[in-house]
Formats: sequence, C-alpha cells, structure tokens
Amino acid sequence: MQDFGQIDVKPYLTTKSLVPENQETPIQFSNDDIVHPKLFYRRNHFTYPNFTSSFYFLTVEGLVHTSKAFSLQDIYSLPSKNVKAVLECSGNKRGLFQPKVFGEQWGKGAISQGIWKGVPLRILLQHTGLLNTAKEIVFEGHDFGERPDSNRIVHFSRSLPIEIALDPDTIIAYQYNSRPIPFKHGFPLRLIVPGWYGMASVKWIKKITVIDRAFSGPFQAKDYIYYPNNENEKGKFPVTNINVNSTIQFPREMQLLHKGIYEIKGIAWTGKGSIEKVEISFDEGHTWEPCQLDAVPQKYAWVSWNYKWNAANDGEYAIRSKATDTYGNVQPFDPFWNKKGYGYNAHDRIKVKIE
Amino acid sequence: MQDFGQIDVKPYLTTKSLVPENQETPIQFSNDDIVHPKLFYRRNHFTYPNFTSSFYFLTVEGLVHTSKAFSLQDIYSLPSKNVKAVLECSGNKRGLFQPKVFGEQWGKGAISQGIWKGVPLRILLQHTGLLNTAKEIVFEGHDFGERPDSNRIVHFSRSLPIEIALDPDTIIAYQYNSRPIPFKHGFPLRLIVPGWYGMASVKWIKKITVIDRAFSGPFQAKDYIYYPNNENEKGKFPVTNINVNSTIQFPREMQLLHKGIYEIKGIAWTGKGSIEKVEISFDEGHTWEPCQLDAVPQKYAWVSWNYKWNAANDGEYAIRSKATDTYGNVQPFDPFWNKKGYGYNAHDRIKVKIE
Repeated sequence: MQDFGQIDVKPYLTTKSLVPENQETPIQFSNDDIVHPKLFYRRNHFTYPNFTSSFYFLTVEGLVHTSKAFSLQDIYSLPSKNVKAVLECSGNKRGLFQPKVFGEQWGKGAISQGIWKGVPLRILLQHTGLLNTAKEIVFEGHDFGERPDSNRIVHFSRSLPIEIALDPDTIIAYQYNSRPIPFKHGFPLRLIVPGWYGMASVKWIKKITVIDRAFSGPFQAKDYIYYPNNENEKGKFPVTNINVNSTIQFPREMQLLHKGIYEIKGIAWTGKGSIEKVEISFDEGHTWEPCQLDAVPQKYAWVSWNYKWNAANDGEYAIRSKATDTYGNVQPFDPFWNKKGYGYNAHDRIKVKIE
Repeated sequence: MQDFGQIDVKPYLTTKSLVPENQETPIQFSNDDIVHPKLFYRRNHFTYPNFTSSFYFLTVEGLVHTSKAFSLQDIYSLPSKNVKAVLECSGNKRGLFQPKVFGEQWGKGAISQGIWKGVPLRILLQHTGLLNTAKEIVFEGHDFGERPDSNRIVHFSRSLPIEIALDPDTIIAYQYNSRPIPFKHGFPLRLIVPGWYGMASVKWIKKITVIDRAFSGPFQAKDYIYYPNNENEKGKFPVTNINVNSTIQFPREMQLLHKGIYEIKGIAWTGKGSIEKVEISFDEGHTWEPCQLDAVPQKYAWVSWNYKWNAANDGEYAIRSKATDTYGNVQPFDPFWNKKGYGYNAHDRIKVKIE
C-alpha cells in the first residue's frame, strides 16, 4: 500500500527522429535561464560516434607554422573563459514555414542555453602560428556517416572565417554548466561559436585544419545555405549568425483561459549585439506595447521577458511578440522563406480564447 | 576517461501541459504492440489526487438492492479477465483540425494500448443487485479541482448507460501489462471501457452510483460533446465510441528520402467491431492500394500494417492511409469539424520528398 504525497511531473525532450537522434527542448515548460543537460536539445547528422577518450588528441594542422596535437590535459591547463550562450539550430521553427519546407519539422524548441567553459581557439592558434595564406579554419568532428546525396562516408566538418575563429569568445569548450560536457553534446571537446547558429559549434572535435580557400564540404556548401528560390540556386547565401528572435512561452498556442490577469512570458535572443527591446501586439502588429525584460540583456544569451495582461473580456486573441536588437535588427511580420527552412524569425504568434 | 560503446537513444513523452499533466505518446517511434507504461500517454483534468490506498474502498450505491464497499482484496479475489484495448483521448489529432480548434493541441500520440486485467463490472453489480429503475451508472474518480467554467470544486465523474456497464468487457482494472496499474494511470483501480474514447475509462475510481436519469455532470453534459456549430449547440451529441482511424508511423511528415524501397508502416483501430482493411493512396484518394496487416485484427486493439513502396522517382508525394472496420465505417477524406475538436478521424496524410 502506498501514499502519493509527491508525484513527479516534469517535461521531457520531444522526439523528432531517433536515427540520427533529434530531440527538441520543451521550451514552453522551461523557466530556467540555464537549460538542464537532460533537456538540452539534441541535433545530430549521424549516429553517435564511437571513440575512446583515453587517447584523445585535438590536432591542429594545415597552414600553421608548427602542427600540434593537444591532449586533453594540455587543453585543460591553458587559460580558459566562460561563455553563456544560446545554441539554436538553424532549423528551429522550421515547422512554421508556409508553404511547408521538407526536413525535420522542428517546433520552437531547437534552442537551449547554458554556460560553456573552454580555451579560446586563438590561444591554441598562438601555439601553432598561422601562415599568411590562411583563410578559413576547418573543424572536423568524430561523427561520420553516409549523406542522402552521396555514397561516400563523410565526417561532419564545418569551417569558420579566420576573423571569427580568432574572436576571443570562440572557444574549445570542455565544460557545460561546470560539469564535463555531456557525451551527446560533444564530450570531451566542442567548438562553441557564440552568436552563430548551432551547426557551427562542431561536437566531438578531433581535427582543426587551416586552409587557404573556401571550404567546400557538404555541410558548408550544400546544407546550411539559404536558397530563397525553390527551383534554382539564385540568391543563395550561407547560414551564419543567429537572427533576432523571440518565443512566447505562456500562454500556449490555442489555450483556453478564464478572464483574469496573466503574465505573458517568453524569451528573446539575437546573434549580433544584444536585445534592445521586446514588444507585444494584440492586433496583428498594428500597435505594439513594450514588455518588461527580466534582466539586462547580455550578448549571446537569451533574455526572459513578461507582460502583465488584463484579459477582461471574452473572445479570441492573437498575440504577437517582436524583438529588436542593438544593431536595429527587428523580427519581420512574415518569415524569410527559403527552400531548406533555415533562420525562421518572424514575429512569434499564438492564439488564445478567453471564456 | 570513458568509452562510448553503448549510447542510449530513446523516445520520451511529448509535453503538452504540466498543470494538469498532459503528455503524448511518441507514436511515430513506438513499434510495440504493447505500450511501455513510461510511454503511455497522460491525460488529466486536474492535478494528481492525493489519497492513501491503505483504506481504499470502492463503494457501489444508489439504485441497488444492497450498497457495498469493496476492499482491494475483495476485488482481487473476484473472477477477472484480460482485455487488450486501445485507449485514445477523444482530442487525439485535435491539432490537425482546420480551422483550428481551441484546447490542448494534441498531435497523433494521444493514444496507447496494452493489456488491462480486472473484474468485469457486471460481477460487482451482481453482488449489489440493480433496481428496475436503474438507467445510468456514474463513476467518480479521486481527482478533483476547479473547472474554468465554474468556481465549484468538482470531481471527475462520468456515466455509462446500463447496457455498456454490463458488457462483459467493461472491467474494473487493477493491472496493466501484468503489473499494478501505474499511479498516473489510475492505481489502484481504473474503469476500462474498451472501444470508447478514453474519458470513459475513469481513473482512481472511488465510487459507483446507480441513477435513474441521464447524468448531468460537466464532463458528461458540457465537455465530451460534439458541437458541429461554432455559434450554437444545434446538432450536438455525446462522444462515445472510438471512430475508425489510422496513423502512418513511417515515413514522417515532410521527411526527405533517397530513392529506394521502403516499408510504409502504421496502425489502425476502431471502437466498433474490428479493422477489416487498410488502404493507401498516393494520389490524394483517387485510387487506393491494399496494405498488409501484421496480424488478424482483434476487437478493441490496434493492428499494425505495412506497405512496400518502391520510391523509384524523384519528387514530392502525398501519402494517405484509410482504414475500414467490420461495421463498414470508413475514415473520411475531411474530418468532422466540431467546436471542441473531438474524434478527428480523417485519412492520415503525410508528405515526403524523394531526392
């Protein structure tokens, strides 16, 4: 016989795919500024890699003065820094595009944030030196597999322009929220590129190669490209920085509510600068009212916001949120449609009914 | 240092609401005929009840010859039977209605099945007898709270017509899949009404009352009613049996696939009789091809089905599934729109792209 004083009610990741594993953060139910590792969204291109960390070395080679293989102990002993940053999949909110876009139908939860600790990449590069011809830096992960568009086995590899690679906030991270990075999120070493969409933050990195040209790997030159046209490649350009964006966490889409006073809540973030303001509209964007920010917005991190709403009258309401960043970027009314469904950042919009 | 031979990749429940707890089964990722208790969908009207099972009695009163309070030991010692049955929330697939309907935006996973063991309700009623005036039987759960439409505290209560209550397959269950029913699913006793939508299968039942009229509790007379019109109550009728239905589990909505041979997979179920056939269409329902059933369809249970598809040509495909039951009920092309969004059972439809 039992007593049921304490019933555990908690959210879980939302499964989008298991091979490879793609799972979404329950962002509507996460009030934390720092996402618990168990609820951090998972986005993979391949099945999880299988390697032994006992002989783990991170090699830096290519157009450098001296190639080097850094052991984990080497990395841990170098100067480090903490970076609190949003990681957002560039496919976040893909499921909202109209017309619909093929690919994983992410909702609003392909986003998480926490504190990453690691060595600035520039410090590693100071140890190896860079040749004058260096143009891009390629990061290769331990994960590999077949792509739908070829029969060759490829590793997940991405490049950064030199100036981004040398940014003091671009780090080789080994901790997430003061603990070793969870395996599924890149243990033992993960590149973190704050302000860029998540594809740049290569997990399980094994090799860094300095090259003198634009990297042409498939995850650089085929995927993670904005194709504004369905029929051709006209106007294409690469996915880089996170677009200014916001998400309403409460109320939820199509929720039924009593009359009453509510706190409409959400988060806002951007990849360039920081959030300047968040506004809310009850008339499809004709007029806007300011929201209160819970804290002074920081570069790279999301900021929580709220708005006290007196829902005094019965009826249906469409609620829109709109964030503006310090570069003057503003969420648009309509999303920028592109064939692969990246970078959705239209106003967030929900409907609720008061009855 | 670690080795990563075995990485656990598994689906979770999808959170729709935490207060009360509403979580959806990851139906696309469940290949089991019997849903694991951890992945059984959770649908609550209130927060979880708090009671002690040490003094648990199920009382049967009202228009009976002899009122009785059955202890759990009494129940366990009576003749029992196993019933393999789908439980489906009548709001399953509500999120697919167009125009959208207010309320929990369930996807396709507010459905689970397993084997329930318990005492046929008719056996309990044989112990108490029934007066001639008996018309309905009311089941009250331990769960209670405030409803949005009133300030009174109410228990979750539902009634059944006498003939359904006396059906030998209507049971007072105490086991799910050979184990005590998990607390969140109704421990220690849950009414199971196979073939009816889930609201009929009252959890944590404490009291059974025989009455001589139509029960008018809010979960009977306000909710769980089909309202075909948005403006008035014209044409309303109660939610009872599960509609014939099917869900495509693979491929998934908007999935990108290579050319190749695939097994399109899914489940089909109905609340009356059993599944007679499942068909699939690649031309929006103009022509249909038969699917193969994995087993002989059983009353109350879903049947898995599959179709070998040779995806030989690039392009976009809309795939529809359509089930027919032994009563001749067939899934319609369009859903039966109703204001509260119950009983969605239009053809299941997904789009995929071969490239």
